[in-house]
Amino acid sequence: MEMKNTSLEQFTAVLASDAPTPGGGGAAALAGALAVALGNMVGSLTVGKKKYADVEDRIKELNAASEDLRVKLLAQIDEDANAFAPLAKAYGIPKDDPTREQVLEECLHVAAQPPMNILRLSCEAVELIAEYGEKGSRLAISDAGCAAAMAQAAIRSAALNVAINTGLMKDRDYADAMNAELDALMDKYVPLAEQTYELVYGGLR
Amino acid sequence: MEMKNTSLEQFTAVLASDAPTPGGGGAAALAGALAVALGNMVGSLTVGKKKYADVEDRIKELNAASEDLRVKLLAQIDEDANAFAPLAKAYGIPKDDPTREQVLEECLHVAAQPPMNILRLSCEAVELIAEYGEKGSRLAISDAGCAAAMAQAAIRSAALNVAINTGLMKDRDYADAMNAELDALMDKYVPLAEQTYELVYGGLR
Repeated sequence: MEMKNTSLEQFTAVLASDAPTPGGGGAAALAGALAVALGNMVGSLTVGKKKYADVEDRIKELNAASEDLRVKLLAQIDEDANAFAPLAKAYGIPKDDPTREQVLEECLHVAAQPPMNILRLSCEAVELIAEYGEKGSRLAISDAGCAAAMAQAAIRSAALNVAINTGLMKDRDYADAMNAELDALMDKYVPLAEQTYELVYGGLR
Repeated sequence: MEMKNTSLEQFTAVLASDAPTPGGGGAAALAGALAVALGNMVGSLTVGKKKYADVEDRIKELNAASEDLRVKLLAQIDEDANAFAPLAKAYGIPKDDPTREQVLEECLHVAAQPPMNILRLSCEAVELIAEYGEKGSRLAISDAGCAAAMAQAAIRSAALNVAINTGLMKDRDYADAMNAELDALMDKYVPLAEQTYELVYGGLR
């Protein structure tokens, strides 16, 4: 069964257990999906309102992009679990097996991809959410702030899960290239999410 | 049906729609549940390991407290929806109805309670997560960092949903008392979550 079809109760119960997945990567993907859904909620409450007729076409584009990201992020929960499984297995290879190091390295490369994808998708989410915060209905503005907080958590959780893999890679050129993308995304999007949140929170207090 | 029994797919789809609930409050509660579950995952991967025998009793206490918070936070998704429904209805009372102002005021008081509870529970989560970060298995340390990021998002989302209600209250003494608790919790626990996250992320990069 795809993970997106498990209940909130089941997902959080398995997350809390010693099962290797879902873990931080899967939780990051779900947080990203919650973030784009909250953004889309702002959009859904904006479309069709006379006051926001000027931005309606753009809001509809944002809604379509959010829905696309929601589907992609939920799918990453399974991608992350599937990519982690061979790594968990590789740790079981005897330490004196001559293939161990090479197999582990390949598995680390594979395991790092879904968190990096979740990071990229969550950064796209922040762009959309910032625009919802600017253009969306003032009546739903708190949801845009929640979306920003959630997207920031998704980015940060995904980043941890990229870093834990790159940190163990022997191929430092490969690891450095991933870390460079990670740093560039974090440097841009963690502050943009923060700014969107603060703008909303400041407006309410 | 209780919201915790809906699937991740259903929950995020309804969140994205123009349905009044779930909204930021429900998402905050789920983020809080994800946070304590990730903390508990660290604990589950620590218990039974020789290296961590010294802290095992304390980790078991943290795990029990986390499980208690997970159940309470998931229940708050429904509490939030149920407390918001009368407020949504009250906005439909004609503006010239002499009872409107009093009914709205009472509904705002009711609607503010679940977000405040979610805020309090998520702050308790941060305390537990900080301790998992200190004492839990180093092999699961990235999950403690994800937990901290998620708990911070839960706190911030809950805070927005308290503030949107207190901002509309006519009874300023009541609103100020809620805001004072909100500020005290935010001032203490947003930085503690940040510190826990940074400690983990700094250790991996």
